[in-house]
Amino acid sequence: MIDVAIVGAAGYTGAELTRLVVGHPQLSLTMVTSVADAGTKVSEVYPALAGVDLAYVAPDLASIAEVAQLAFLAVPHTAAMELVPPLMKAGLTVVDLSADFRLTDVATYERWYGVPHTAAQLLAEAVYGLPEMARAEIVGAQLVACPGCYPTASVLAALPAIESGVAATDRVIVDAKSGVSGAGRTPAAGTHFVSANEAVSPYKVAIHRHTPEIAQQLTLAAGAPVTVTFTPHLVPMTRGMLATVYLEMAAPVSSADLVSLYAERYADEPFITVHGEGRYPSTAEVRGSNRAHIGVAADENAGTIIAMCAIDNLGKGAASQAVQCANLALRLDETAGLDAPVPVV
Amino acid sequence: MIDVAIVGAAGYTGAELTRLVVGHPQLSLTMVTSVADAGTKVSEVYPALAGVDLAYVAPDLASIAEVAQLAFLAVPHTAAMELVPPLMKAGLTVVDLSADFRLTDVATYERWYGVPHTAAQLLAEAVYGLPEMARAEIVGAQLVACPGCYPTASVLAALPAIESGVAATDRVIVDAKSGVSGAGRTPAAGTHFVSANEAVSPYKVAIHRHTPEIAQQLTLAAGAPVTVTFTPHLVPMTRGMLATVYLEMAAPVSSADLVSLYAERYADEPFITVHGEGRYPSTAEVRGSNRAHIGVAADENAGTIIAMCAIDNLGKGAASQAVQCANLALRLDETAGLDAPVPVV
Amino acid sequence: MIDVAIVGAAGYTGAELTRLVVGHPQLSLTMVTSVADAGTKVSEVYPALAGVDLAYVAPDLASIAEVAQLAFLAVPHTAAMELVPPLMKAGLTVVDLSADFRLTDVATYERWYGVPHTAAQLLAEAVYGLPEMARAEIVGAQLVACPGCYPTASVLAALPAIESGVAATDRVIVDAKSGVSGAGRTPAAGTHFVSANEAVSPYKVAIHRHTPEIAQQLTLAAGAPVTVTFTPHLVPMTRGMLATVYLEMAAPVSSADLVSLYAERYADEPFITVHGEGRYPSTAEVRGSNRAHIGVAADENAGTIIAMCAIDNLGKGAASQAVQCANLALRLDETAGLDAPVPVV
Amino acid sequence: MIDVAIVGAAGYTGAELTRLVVGHPQLSLTMVTSVADAGTKVSEVYPALAGVDLAYVAPDLASIAEVAQLAFLAVPHTAAMELVPPLMKAGLTVVDLSADFRLTDVATYERWYGVPHTAAQLLAEAVYGLPEMARAEIVGAQLVACPGCYPTASVLAALPAIESGVAATDRVIVDAKSGVSGAGRTPAAGTHFVSANEAVSPYKVAIHRHTPEIAQQLTLAAGAPVTVTFTPHLVPMTRGMLATVYLEMAAPVSSADLVSLYAERYADEPFITVHGEGRYPSTAEVRGSNRAHIGVAADENAGTIIAMCAIDNLGKGAASQAVQCANLALRLDETAGLDAPVPVV
Repeated sequence: MIDVAIVGAAGYTGAELTRLVVGHPQLSLTMVTSVADAGTKVSEVYPALAGVDLAYVAPDLASIAEVAQLAFLAVPHTAAMELVPPLMKAGLTVVDLSADFRLTDVATYERWYGVPHTAAQLLAEAVYGLPEMARAEIVGAQLVACPGCYPTASVLAALPAIESGVAATDRVIVDAKSGVSGAGRTPAAGTHFVSANEAVSPYKVAIHRHTPEIAQQLTLAAGAPVTVTFTPHLVPMTRGMLATVYLEMAAPVSSADLVSLYAERYADEPFITVHGEGRYPSTAEVRGSNRAHIGVAADENAGTIIAMCAIDNLGKGAASQAVQCANLALRLDETAGLDAPVPVV
Repeated sequence: MIDVAIVGAAGYTGAELTRLVVGHPQLSLTMVTSVADAGTKVSEVYPALAGVDLAYVAPDLASIAEVAQLAFLAVPHTAAMELVPPLMKAGLTVVDLSADFRLTDVATYERWYGVPHTAAQLLAEAVYGLPEMARAEIVGAQLVACPGCYPTASVLAALPAIESGVAATDRVIVDAKSGVSGAGRTPAAGTHFVSANEAVSPYKVAIHRHTPEIAQQLTLAAGAPVTVTFTPHLVPMTRGMLATVYLEMAAPVSSADLVSLYAERYADEPFITVHGEGRYPSTAEVRGSNRAHIGVAADENAGTIIAMCAIDNLGKGAASQAVQCANLALRLDETAGLDAPVPVV
Repeated sequence: MIDVAIVGAAGYTGAELTRLVVGHPQLSLTMVTSVADAGTKVSEVYPALAGVDLAYVAPDLASIAEVAQLAFLAVPHTAAMELVPPLMKAGLTVVDLSADFRLTDVATYERWYGVPHTAAQLLAEAVYGLPEMARAEIVGAQLVACPGCYPTASVLAALPAIESGVAATDRVIVDAKSGVSGAGRTPAAGTHFVSANEAVSPYKVAIHRHTPEIAQQLTLAAGAPVTVTFTPHLVPMTRGMLATVYLEMAAPVSSADLVSLYAERYADEPFITVHGEGRYPSTAEVRGSNRAHIGVAADENAGTIIAMCAIDNLGKGAASQAVQCANLALRLDETAGLDAPVPVV
Repeated sequence: MIDVAIVGAAGYTGAELTRLVVGHPQLSLTMVTSVADAGTKVSEVYPALAGVDLAYVAPDLASIAEVAQLAFLAVPHTAAMELVPPLMKAGLTVVDLSADFRLTDVATYERWYGVPHTAAQLLAEAVYGLPEMARAEIVGAQLVACPGCYPTASVLAALPAIESGVAATDRVIVDAKSGVSGAGRTPAAGTHFVSANEAVSPYKVAIHRHTPEIAQQLTLAAGAPVTVTFTPHLVPMTRGMLATVYLEMAAPVSSADLVSLYAERYADEPFITVHGEGRYPSTAEVRGSNRAHIGVAADENAGTIIAMCAIDNLGKGAASQAVQCANLALRLDETAGLDAPVPVV
């Protein structure tokens, strides 16, 4: 068993990580940290985790290094860049779910996040934690930078069309819809039940920080600069994310062609379903899982490819993808702890 | 008082029309028809309409013509094309909410709807019931073809950018999100609570029948062919629709420019709010009203305009817009019966 | 037109009052106050109230008295008892939606609310604003204390059985279910979308402050002490309240008997529907209205009467009932501004 | 590995059973039957079950007996009484989730279900599948009749108070709230999203068929006849059930006393949490699990005990409880396949 600490364990992503590590056959959860909930039992904060016999402790670098071989960081950006260097120095494998090590270009990071990067020397070592794009690099890595929920869904939807050259690179449009848990556990006006219920609304239009991350990954896939327009929307559900991606055809292509292309690209992926022609993904069908369900269609009249990907924003978009990356980094079975079927409703 | 009949009054749109006509200062509701609910009191089917002292009757052309000067048709396509000619011959003003008289080109209609048009001679007489585009034609018209809910939101979002030439015409992308009431009152697998709740999913991708209607209206506005890619999504809420429209800039333009353009275009519109820079519409804020709330932003890096319009799919997207059109057709005050403020939550 | 001020106008109840006063044929809204939103336009805070051309101002006794003949107080308890004496002295009619003047016994108030009552001398003047129980007293009153949402639904459900003697007085059980808007506009952990969605949960079991208010009114109706057990629950919807009340039969009675009794008791009530045998109320059917829908059944085997009442917690449970009371206090038509039918979904 | 068939596997309960059997360390799923979906792959009907490599087959007694040692019956009442005798004769262990073998008194069954019982000779052999009440009998049983969802929550809430004599037996009131999945997978008017959303409504008041089942079990616990009034309500959520039970105190008792009593009674139960004083269960906290969370309070003034139990209607109320019973019947570890923690939101 490999000892694991979760830093920032009391948020939604941290709680999902807790659940997954506890149920994992080869991981052993030795520490959960939380600044706000230090001293409280996990099952007190989350009665759904009755049976998890741990209490939150205040985060402390020395203690983490002592009890864990791997640390998941479910902390805000800037917090991660302070934790990562000492944890790596202490020999831990770090799976970071913050934004701090996702962007390879430090200037891009500093422009979009508005803060200096204090651990830029580690950017070259960090591997981007999207196994469907970067599996080989993740295997054995000491620092994995897990993608945001929006980039995961967007990149998985666009990838086969972009890397095959079927789609042009100059105008990729991502219209994404997220459940409210994506906004975190802290109450706020926009996530008040009465505000969010019965409401669909866009936010941070054209300025969301996940934009450069999507562009970076698609550029990597295309081998040429890809421009991305990204519009996130909040929809009235707890979990789930759907990215609807619009791409310009490089040459005429049919829906059947696209389904074949996608099915082939993802044929060996353990967590991806490519739907047949005319069937499209629903967020409800991936809730609670590490799966991505993908549908694709051609609008031949307009010359547009429409690729749709549904994930669970807290699952493949956060916690379970981090476990998938940890499995790879630790050279375990990639699906360990992630292959139980999930409730159908 | 002008006597009004509602044909197909027991569906959601018919019930909203019932509510609006009953509350209208110059209209008097004399007949509500329903095949399925004939013989039942309105307040029995819809306890929310306690106080409406009418029962549904089976539809009958002679009786309608006898008791009404204006008829709202809230019936499926093909049913309307049978009713419209005799009702017009009997001298009634007809406000048709079906698809039968929206498309000016009969071949387009027959291709998308898969049926022959049996009243094509009246297409030239029909005016498209979007007051913000065609107010002058609607005034005094005998036959108004009210837009579908998707075209209403999509066209209102794109119109200022398209007709001003600020946007290019060759690749308009509409990503629309609808509440479940848009699917009507008949229970079905996809609208079962358990299926629709906690789910966002696209449907009829690139083949939805509202596509040619959106293209027709934008082409009219541009004075040049506009190609539209349209993806509808179902989201877990009862009412509301958001269209997020992506347009290519014809020349560089800023968010501030766009807000000015939109604010000016809609300055005199009684039912439209154009939000300031950085504020975006929420379906919750138009629920139950005839309003359209619009936000617009420039993604200057990608050369993309993002225009968003929120309406109530049963309001401005159906029943209340039909009343707005009736007001114009009857030369009443355009806002009569439509100006009461609506609940804030 | 009678000039009206709304004090505490930026909460949900205040916003509903704003909507109702603006749409009222004989009331004119001259002032809306808010501590937190002073200086902001109403339509800025609530885009649904586009068309309301007022800005919030900080509350100030002298100004209120200057511009209004009637004041609605949508403020927390303790705030009302400071405002009421000077406003009454200045000659205003006051419709108070707080708890400060609902309980006739000052000791009961002080025990349940934990604060001294500083305007106890006015308790004798205050009339309880439930027209179905106290219409005659409300007519012409200068101070109306509007019931809480839970007491409104609970008392309307129990009243005919209690005052007729059909039900025993010694063990009345109220199990009530409320939409989340009842918890107000301020974000909190329990009303965060993610917490409240997909959740039913009881709270303040046996200790909710509405308990003595329900008991007081049923005791008044029975002419003998009534003991009430009250359990409120939060359910995942924005608006609506259902009270399910269990009463012990004083003598055997059938469902048909009960329906007759209830129908007769409420025959002249403009806002109450008593459903026929076997039909029960749904909160969805009263949403946005001032109506109360009631169903009643006998469990003859157990000797239990089950009476159910659905209201809109912000409507008959708060804002629209306050307008109904204002109509009576001002000797206007009781239904003025409240009789427009509401959306069916 | 023990071979298992699920009969009626395409409904929600059947699909949950599928998920649980597939993830169970000692059970092997060999057959899933469905009349309506015969011939279709499980993952086609339920994409969430991607990875389950089986297709539905039409139910056939001989085949079931051939491939399975244990059969779960997730079929309607009357269907089960035809299947049980031959399956038992063929030596299978049968875990029946229908109502056919829950009531020990055949006359009661025939009165409430309105049909003759054709396998009454097996009623004496059937054990009631509520482990917290009847663990010893379930161990090694060949026929287990699993409780309905309402009885599970209601009995667990009332049991400690009833069997200890702390509560009187003569007037037990159960007010229960269920998620919509309890109504099954077949679309209907009442479970249409638009009808069920934003709605709380009671149904089958005082006539629901789970009433005699609750009364039977509490009578057994009390050793004296218990009379039950039962009111089910539908609330707008997919999964979850809360039973709020009101009992008359036999003698004065405090909340602290009750919490102790309940905590002690359920101390060794692997799936029950008894909350401390002042904390109450939420359906959200048991979603997807086999857990029951219980809170209890005394209304000392009224002499009423309020006991609340939250379960997942498809989990402890159906599928996972059936697996718990199967574990006991097969003499496996009671928690096998049921102890993975569940998502916190």
